[in-house]
Amino acid sequence: MSKDYTTLWKEIGLNLGKHDGLLSVLSDAYKNIYLSQKNRPEGMKYFDFVISEVHGLRIEELYEAKKEKRKVIGTFCVYVPEELVLAVDGVFVGLCAGAEVGFEEAEKYVPRNTCALIKAFMGFKLSGLCPYVELTDLIVGETTCDGKKKAYEIFDEITRKMYVMEIPNMKNDSDRKLWLEEVRKFKDKIEEISGKEITLNLLKKATEIVNQKRLALQRLSKLRAYDPSPISGLDALLVNQIAFYDDPVRFTMKVNELCDELEERVRKGNGIAPKGTPRILISGSPFAIPNWKLHAIVENSGAVVVGEESCVGSRNFRELTDENFNSLEEGLEKIAMRYMGIDCACFTPNKERIDNVKSLFKELKADGVIHCALQFCTPYMMEAFKIEKKIDFPYMRIETDYSMEDFGQLKTRVEAFIETLR
Amino acid sequence: MSKDYTTLWKEIGLNLGKHDGLLSVLSDAYKNIYLSQKNRPEGMKYFDFVISEVHGLRIEELYEAKKEKRKVIGTFCVYVPEELVLAVDGVFVGLCAGAEVGFEEAEKYVPRNTCALIKAFMGFKLSGLCPYVELTDLIVGETTCDGKKKAYEIFDEITRKMYVMEIPNMKNDSDRKLWLEEVRKFKDKIEEISGKEITLNLLKKATEIVNQKRLALQRLSKLRAYDPSPISGLDALLVNQIAFYDDPVRFTMKVNELCDELEERVRKGNGIAPKGTPRILISGSPFAIPNWKLHAIVENSGAVVVGEESCVGSRNFRELTDENFNSLEEGLEKIAMRYMGIDCACFTPNKERIDNVKSLFKELKADGVIHCALQFCTPYMMEAFKIEKKIDFPYMRIETDYSMEDFGQLKTRVEAFIETLR
Repeated sequence: MSKDYTTLWKEIGLNLGKHDGLLSVLSDAYKNIYLSQKNRPEGMKYFDFVISEVHGLRIEELYEAKKEKRKVIGTFCVYVPEELVLAVDGVFVGLCAGAEVGFEEAEKYVPRNTCALIKAFMGFKLSGLCPYVELTDLIVGETTCDGKKKAYEIFDEITRKMYVMEIPNMKNDSDRKLWLEEVRKFKDKIEEISGKEITLNLLKKATEIVNQKRLALQRLSKLRAYDPSPISGLDALLVNQIAFYDDPVRFTMKVNELCDELEERVRKGNGIAPKGTPRILISGSPFAIPNWKLHAIVENSGAVVVGEESCVGSRNFRELTDENFNSLEEGLEKIAMRYMGIDCACFTPNKERIDNVKSLFKELKADGVIHCALQFCTPYMMEAFKIEKKIDFPYMRIETDYSMEDFGQLKTRVEAFIETLR
Repeated sequence: MSKDYTTLWKEIGLNLGKHDGLLSVLSDAYKNIYLSQKNRPEGMKYFDFVISEVHGLRIEELYEAKKEKRKVIGTFCVYVPEELVLAVDGVFVGLCAGAEVGFEEAEKYVPRNTCALIKAFMGFKLSGLCPYVELTDLIVGETTCDGKKKAYEIFDEITRKMYVMEIPNMKNDSDRKLWLEEVRKFKDKIEEISGKEITLNLLKKATEIVNQKRLALQRLSKLRAYDPSPISGLDALLVNQIAFYDDPVRFTMKVNELCDELEERVRKGNGIAPKGTPRILISGSPFAIPNWKLHAIVENSGAVVVGEESCVGSRNFRELTDENFNSLEEGLEKIAMRYMGIDCACFTPNKERIDNVKSLFKELKADGVIHCALQFCTPYMMEAFKIEKKIDFPYMRIETDYSMEDFGQLKTRVEAFIETLR
């Protein structure tokens, strides 16, 4: 970290002793998993820096933003329209957490059989370890799964600042109406807490910012289609994780700089692994930061990860919002339409997702798919079975969580799978 | 069984060998759990008979109904409007299953970490053991939980006769509109498959039949409020289970006959257990037939179960449909309104349920509540934690499934809990 943030952390109300421990574990893990990689792009230095300052500089920025009366909005899901938050000059940060922290505390409020992502965001808060949660003015949940839907009720009793958007279960006309209504209500809520009015121009500008971010991530994704891939899956995953909490304009610039370098690498045939290395598409539940387990296993088993068909991945950037609107209401409709296009397993049916997995497999020239669902993540666990029956390429189904207990077992299975792809 | 149904079962396509085994296990369990009870009401003889003919006479009735071109509609949830099925003279049967049958088969299609109720209905079908599923013309699912919502997609690929109603996640205006639309679509679907038109008079008559059933079940529930209770929890549970698949008019008559007898018992102070026996309200996930495990444990541990705050229980009969409508459209609105009143844990928030648990506790003069969630039934598991923090009476939280492996452990915990109530 570039300086001592103790005073800031104290002011925010973190548990300083535990927090030092957390940062030290995180820093060690990062060194082992990330900094040990060979031939990394220069452009990853920015993202290394962001990670090193994940509870430092970025938190200071949020703190300063709040002083300037900008609102900090925390979210857990790619369904929350970032455009509306940016339109009031708000700060949009993802609160999903990818580490086994505070699970014992969390299990006093939710069942043990709850997915690790939920126990993690509750655990981080309950242990006083998440500066992001502490700095939020509003925490926006959604009804994408039973676990989150019901855990938010409990999380609201703890934080007193939850707002839940309803995601319908289907995509029929009445669902689209309901969802548009939810987008309108969210706009009202954001205007209310920020005290600012969203105008057509503000919405247009915000939409452009978010689309530029998505385009940069799309560009990165397309570069991974080359063989050899110019970037490791671990590094690309990190960029996709940081997309949820960095300043969007700066982030977009840095991703594009990285992509310039990767294009140069592609021209020179400079890959992260030799041409012909087995190429894996990972599909399924989100990989919240710092959940790097599966990517680390795959890339230490002689393969390269070329894509994430995941919320932290393609589900977050595949669709742009149509910028061609001439009234605020039309803008809200375009936003609602864009988000309704996301192929989350929370929908029934969700045929688009199988099509998207297939086309991503082809587009990224993958050799096999590893479907990874978090344990107790019923929607993705169930779809894993459905997909298996509908595809004709090498496919492996994994259920795991954030613990390292199954590391050895997973590594054995992944190695065996990769062996079949050679 | 009153006669040999082998020919019928063969025609339906059951796996005869396995089916004989199933019936024999079921019959033994029934003898041990039910027929061993002392001082049972005479009126239970009808329900004993129904159980003994669960795959016999009732199946023959369904088979005959189909010959008369009546349609058999299978369901899994108290949200499917029975009124509309009865309005076209259809047969309405619950397909939820309460036994560990065919789990190995089911786990080829859904994850191991799926609730027992889902694995059971899939397992019964996949093993060729459910005559009800085979006789249905339409199987109606709903989006009440992630597990069922996604399993229905898979079940449709197996049965090719699923129809899914969308239950929204909230109870706001737009949700009510969506749900009313779902009720209208279901009416259209039922008319389409039956080839009959639902008229105002047919709907009024059907509504009356369903309300009469609910009133009879309410009457039974109220009689359990007396101390001593005139009927065991096991017997009352059985009546509530049979409510889902017996002929509604006959069933209502038989429940009322039973209630006449119970009233007489109350007058005489003739209880199923001595006055002052600890009284338990069971709350949580549904108890599909033949899941009698928890009731058997409680009533063999010196307590009496006085109510089920469950879909197989109060959630199925608490609200009547308002019969005061003068057009078909108004009738559909009343039906939609009635079902939207159900306090399922699938809604967020679901404050009504806590209020209902509290008032049921009071009304039934219970001494303690055992909250029982099926393992991996996230909505009820989560609410179990919420309720615990909001009540001031003795409360125990249980997670279990259909296996007998935890029988001893549960019995020990339940006995200890009951001990505290004396």
